[in-house]
Amino acid sequence: MRIRNKPWAEDELRKNPRVIFGPETKKNISGHWQEFFGNSNPIHLEIGTGKGHFIIEIAEQHPEINFIGFEKVEEVLIYPARYAVEYDKKNMAFIYGDAQFITNYFAPGEVERIYLNFSDPWPKKRHHKRRLTHPRFLNLYKEVLKVGGEIHFKTDNRDFFEFSLEKLSGNGFLLKNITFDLHNSEYAEKNIMTRYEKKWVEMGKAIYRLEAIWTGK
Amino acid sequence: MRIRNKPWAEDELRKNPRVIFGPETKKNISGHWQEFFGNSNPIHLEIGTGKGHFIIEIAEQHPEINFIGFEKVEEVLIYPARYAVEYDKKNMAFIYGDAQFITNYFAPGEVERIYLNFSDPWPKKRHHKRRLTHPRFLNLYKEVLKVGGEIHFKTDNRDFFEFSLEKLSGNGFLLKNITFDLHNSEYAEKNIMTRYEKKWVEMGKAIYRLEAIWTGK
Ligand SMILES: C[S@@+](CC[C@H](N)C(=O)[O-])C[C@H]1O[C@@H](n2cnc3c(N)ncnc32)[C@H](O)[C@@H]1O
Ligand SMILES: C[S@@+](CC[C@H](N)C(=O)[O-])C[C@H]1O[C@@H](n2cnc3c(N)ncnc32)[C@H](O)[C@@H]1O
Repeated sequence: MRIRNKPWAEDELRKNPRVIFGPETKKNISGHWQEFFGNSNPIHLEIGTGKGHFIIEIAEQHPEINFIGFEKVEEVLIYPARYAVEYDKKNMAFIYGDAQFITNYFAPGEVERIYLNFSDPWPKKRHHKRRLTHPRFLNLYKEVLKVGGEIHFKTDNRDFFEFSLEKLSGNGFLLKNITFDLHNSEYAEKNIMTRYEKKWVEMGKAIYRLEAIWTGK
Repeated sequence: MRIRNKPWAEDELRKNPRVIFGPETKKNISGHWQEFFGNSNPIHLEIGTGKGHFIIEIAEQHPEINFIGFEKVEEVLIYPARYAVEYDKKNMAFIYGDAQFITNYFAPGEVERIYLNFSDPWPKKRHHKRRLTHPRFLNLYKEVLKVGGEIHFKTDNRDFFEFSLEKLSGNGFLLKNITFDLHNSEYAEKNIMTRYEKKWVEMGKAIYRLEAIWTGK
C-alpha cells in the first residue's frame, strides 16, 4: 500500500457524508445509489475527477442527473467533496477509490454514463494496460453500464485517443460525435472545460473527443 | 462534359450486359436490381472500383451477395466488367457513372453496404467537398442505404481518415472496428487488398480503416 502523506485529507474524506470511502468502508453501496440520492435519476460517473471543475459545473447545469466523482487521490478529491457539502449539492457524490474496483460500487446497469476527462495517457507501450480505455477497464465498465449507456472521453494525447477509438470500437461500443479538434468543432459550444483542458487549450493544443455507446454485446 | 479519349472503352462498356451505362441509358434500374440479378440477395456497392481487384475477390468469396462496382472512369472499369462476362459472374454488375448521381440508380433502402476503398483524398481544404465521405455524399448514401446498412472505408491518408471519422460519426452513422494500422490489427486476416493498397503497403504506409452503421436518423 502506498504511504499516504496527507492523513488529514483522508480524515476529511472519511467524515464527508457525500464520500464513499474506499473498499474497506463501502457499506454495500452497490445497488443502493437510488437510496443514497433519494431519487431514481440517472447516474453519471466521472472517473479521475481531480479537483472537480468539470463535475461541479455539469452537476450545476443538470440537477436532473446524479453525478458521482471517482478519484483515487485524496488531496485533490477533498475540494469537490467539500464543495458538495458546503453548497448542499444533493446531486453530487464521490467515491474515494481506484477505478479498477468499480464493480464493487455499482450493480449491473446502475450507471448510465461515464466521463473520462484527460485520463492519464500512459505513453509507454508497456503501460498501455493502465489506460482507462484499455479493454481490461472497458470490460469492467460494461459490467456497470446500462445497455445504451455511454462513455464520453476527451484527451489532449493523440496516441491515447487513437488507442481509445480502436479499443472502444472493437469491443462492443459504437462511436459517435468524434472530433480531432474539439474547440474548433460544433461541440465547442456545449463543452465544459476541465482543469487540465484549460491548461492544454491555453498552450494551443488540440483536444480530441468521442462518445461511445455500449451495445450490450 | 470532359473529352473522352478512349471511345473504344466507352463502346465496350456500352455493349457489356453487366454494365449499367451512365444516366442517359439507365433504363430505370433503380428499384429493379432484384430482377437484374434474378434473386433477392443483399446488394453491396463499391464506389470507385478502379480496375476491380477488390470486387473480383470479394464477389468470389461471397456468392450469396450481389456486388456492384460504381466507377466513373471507363478505361479502368472495362477490366472488371470484362472479367464478369468472361467468367460469367452472376453476382457482379457495374455502373459506369459518377457517385454524385447514386440516387438515380437505387431506390431507398436498396443498398445494404457501401465500400469506399482508397477514394481520392483531395488534400486541399477547398476540395474537401469532393471527398466521398463529405456530408454532401453521406446524405446521398443515406437515401439508398437501408437502415442498419454499413459503409466500410479504408485509406492511406490520415487527414482524410480523421475527416471521415468526424463526418460519419457526426451525421447519423455509428462507428465500429476502427483501426489506424489495418495490417497490424486483428482485421488483417480477413482483409482483401486493393490495387492501391498493395502499393501503399509495399511502401510501408499504415492503412486506416473503419466501419459505419447507418442508424436511420
Ligand atoms: C490527468 S488528471 C485529470 C483530472 C481532471 N479530469 C481534469 O481533466 O482536469 C487524472 C486524474 O485521474 C485520477 N485517476 C487516475 N487513475 C485513476 C483510477 N484508476 N481510479 C480513480 N482515479 C484515477 C488521477 O488521480 C488524477 O486525479
Ligand atoms: C484512388 S482510386 C482507388 C481505386 C481502387 N478502389 C483501389 O483501391 O485500388 C479512386 C477511384 O475512384 C474513382 N472515383 C472517384 N470519384 C468517383 C465518383 N464520384 N464516382 C465514381 N467513381 C469515382 C476514380 O475514377 C478511381 O478509379
